[in-house]
Amino acid sequence: MKNKAITDREVDFAKWYTDVVKAAKLADYSSVKGCCILEPNGYALWEKIQSVLDKMFKETGHQNVYLPMFIPESLMRKESELIEGFAPEGAWVTQGGKNTLEERLIVRPTSETLFSDYYALKVKSYRDLPKLYNQWCNVVRWEKETRPFLRTREFLWQEGHTVHETEKEAKEETLKMLNIYKKFFEEYLAIPVITGRKTEKEKFAGAEYTYTVEALMYNGVALQSGTSHYFGQKFSKAYDIKFLNRNNQLEYAYQTSWGVSTRMIGGLIMVHSDENGLVLPPKIAPRQVVIVPIGDDEKVLNLSNQILEKLKSAGIVTFADLTEKSPGFKFAEHEVNGIPVRIEIGKRDLENNLITLARRDTREKINVDANCDIVEVVKNLLDDIQNNLYNKALKRRNELTYDCKTLEEVEKIMNTKPGFVRAMWCGEEACELKMKEIRGTKSRCILENEKPISDKCVVCGKKAKHLVVWGIQY
Amino acid sequence: MKNKAITDREVDFAKWYTDVVKAAKLADYSSVKGCCILEPNGYALWEKIQSVLDKMFKETGHQNVYLPMFIPESLMRKESELIEGFAPEGAWVTQGGKNTLEERLIVRPTSETLFSDYYALKVKSYRDLPKLYNQWCNVVRWEKETRPFLRTREFLWQEGHTVHETEKEAKEETLKMLNIYKKFFEEYLAIPVITGRKTEKEKFAGAEYTYTVEALMYNGVALQSGTSHYFGQKFSKAYDIKFLNRNNQLEYAYQTSWGVSTRMIGGLIMVHSDENGLVLPPKIAPRQVVIVPIGDDEKVLNLSNQILEKLKSAGIVTFADLTEKSPGFKFAEHEVNGIPVRIEIGKRDLENNLITLARRDTREKINVDANCDIVEVVKNLLDDIQNNLYNKALKRRNELTYDCKTLEEVEKIMNTKPGFVRAMWCGEEACELKMKEIRGTKSRCILENEKPISDKCVVCGKKAKHLVVWGIQY
Repeated sequence: MKNKAITDREVDFAKWYTDVVKAAKLADYSSVKGCCILEPNGYALWEKIQSVLDKMFKETGHQNVYLPMFIPESLMRKESELIEGFAPEGAWVTQGGKNTLEERLIVRPTSETLFSDYYALKVKSYRDLPKLYNQWCNVVRWEKETRPFLRTREFLWQEGHTVHETEKEAKEETLKMLNIYKKFFEEYLAIPVITGRKTEKEKFAGAEYTYTVEALMYNGVALQSGTSHYFGQKFSKAYDIKFLNRNNQLEYAYQTSWGVSTRMIGGLIMVHSDENGLVLPPKIAPRQVVIVPIGDDEKVLNLSNQILEKLKSAGIVTFADLTEKSPGFKFAEHEVNGIPVRIEIGKRDLENNLITLARRDTREKINVDANCDIVEVVKNLLDDIQNNLYNKALKRRNELTYDCKTLEEVEKIMNTKPGFVRAMWCGEEACELKMKEIRGTKSRCILENEKPISDKCVVCGKKAKHLVVWGIQY
Repeated sequence: MKNKAITDREVDFAKWYTDVVKAAKLADYSSVKGCCILEPNGYALWEKIQSVLDKMFKETGHQNVYLPMFIPESLMRKESELIEGFAPEGAWVTQGGKNTLEERLIVRPTSETLFSDYYALKVKSYRDLPKLYNQWCNVVRWEKETRPFLRTREFLWQEGHTVHETEKEAKEETLKMLNIYKKFFEEYLAIPVITGRKTEKEKFAGAEYTYTVEALMYNGVALQSGTSHYFGQKFSKAYDIKFLNRNNQLEYAYQTSWGVSTRMIGGLIMVHSDENGLVLPPKIAPRQVVIVPIGDDEKVLNLSNQILEKLKSAGIVTFADLTEKSPGFKFAEHEVNGIPVRIEIGKRDLENNLITLARRDTREKINVDANCDIVEVVKNLLDDIQNNLYNKALKRRNELTYDCKTLEEVEKIMNTKPGFVRAMWCGEEACELKMKEIRGTKSRCILENEKPISDKCVVCGKKAKHLVVWGIQY
């Protein structure tokens, strides 16, 4: 039985996606053009993501702060690449109260400028370093085409901004945060990711280099899911962040920044969900288990209560659905919402001393003894679902990952069953632009530690410098 | 010994306040006029406040969401009182990317309009009710004069917006949230508060009535610290939130909203702190205990470690300061930061089997047996500090609360030792305006369940309707 509110994923992936977002009540359009509303189910997912990542950040010595969301244009202009990158999609405040402002303010598209301005005041000596700050906030980029989670004018994210005494330490930080993101994607979101360096053309405006986390969606389209930038001294020179080093000399500090956003939720949907709605990995599901007692038999309700208490005590987020809706309606609702495990307790089953566990990922139903060690059983099932989702996603990604040695091969793949294309590249932007002519295929990242697959650039045939992953992107 | 970076509170209260904010590294000014930076210590306090309140909200059935921060002017204009109240202090976005917008957008000063617009779409039947939503976000009001935490152009807050089937239920929600705030202020922030209804003149633009939480600062100035509004059907009529009721008739829904902000942190400082910096009630302190081992004696360090582990295991947020600074420097730093308890472990004391506990509130030092049940001792001490701070604040507030029967009495008090004035009021705005001539004294709230202190209005002498608390406000 298929959820009728949801389009077939194989028929129209884009429509399927927005159907899932709506049916699972994750987000909705608002009266504000290009901006979405995060509804309770969507926001709960963001809160769960925040809580896990925030813990990882704090365990690695980071502290949270909050900086203003308005940036004076002149401050933004101090770093020329950044303003060029972001001015075309800025939202500008020009009036405050009844007055026209003397200088317009951009609503933060990202906060390198303000953090640098702040660090310039606070960092005087190597003893003040490092500063490892992060903020959770809203940002704005005035996009033309928008889609829930993937691209909206306002979105929520975290942005880490750190400042260090040495190049080495800052470079280590860049990689450390990249690896935290990778771990989070793989262990919590159950999404296998490729990490690597962006090309010069694709790197962040103002960065010396950018590392990226790239995921492949079910339909073979790539999603840039997180980035970690090394700035060297570019911002510290533009914003004058100087400190007395251990040799008692003034030196410009070394900086990084790194961020992930609500866009991850879009990735989560497009990797795991199906025609019946949302599918969530247990480790990131805001609610892990729902108990549905069928009918109002006393034994049924008692057992439901007992199981609820046991699971909650064991730290498994569980709730019982005691509303007056029919069991079938409840099953469909919890399924579309992606609750990983549903426990059905019915009078007839109970007469045979059985209860039913339904797992969301495979939609299998499993009968278990009503007197089993339910905590143990559910824990194992949740682990199994988590692993299964990861393995399924990895299998899909591997199936859709191709090694190509000619442009013709790339063209054929991107026009039939797109995915990640691994191909050699000479390092010239002209060849990247040539690739882009194939349905917008872009370099996702340079693979730094993998074996070359040939010695010739897939486009021009000249000497290759890098093995690159390419893809069509969101 | 007094902290030299901090002005004497009795000499210049305003200067003392900003000195404490700076010395405790809670917040700093930014290059963005009227906007402050919440530094790690300040933001950690906000995170702690959020975590406690968020739990209280969720336990009472509320869910978090996130709505856009831009509101089209036309949407805002649907409720005339609201736009009149907020337009004069709006920040307006007029340019998006390279284009001038067809309609300017106000950066949310509050979100009744967007929530109402959203509810109009979602609420069709009594079965959809209630919706109990809250959001944690930034808001903007283009203030002229700003002070850290108390009044900044951008600030952080939570705004709850609920919609109900009946007037009764919505009115109960208004009071329920008021009482949650009261509980939070008294039990966590250790700030005694007065709650009551605002006069017509002082109520929120668009509300039928407003309840408020009022606190008295050390200097006798009042701080409006939280509000809970009953809207009746005002917004549901303006934004067309209609539902089919149980009699199958279309009816306009009943709404409330309620909020508290980072302003609370200002209140926390101005009630408890002193010439040595921040003083924090243990239940809201992000870090409750610091251990300072003196010297690098092995026994000292071992004991420090043992105590650290014991306290952490018991759920007491504890850290050890192992930096290379001098003990005196560390003591002063943790004192200015308001860490409630400091444990000093020194070699000489240890030879006598003693360690020292220093409590931040009274600055007393207490010697205890090095082998004592440290968890028990520290728990009791933290409780004692929490209670002492509340009682001290209550005593101060009671000393500065006056019953007045004539304008002369009010004048004398407000000009010498201001505080809360309890006085009768006839209900006429003219009399409120007359009071305002006395150093800006305003009605704080109407006390609904207390005995009248006379039958005549303190201003005009005519028949009194209400017992009102008055004060000079921030």
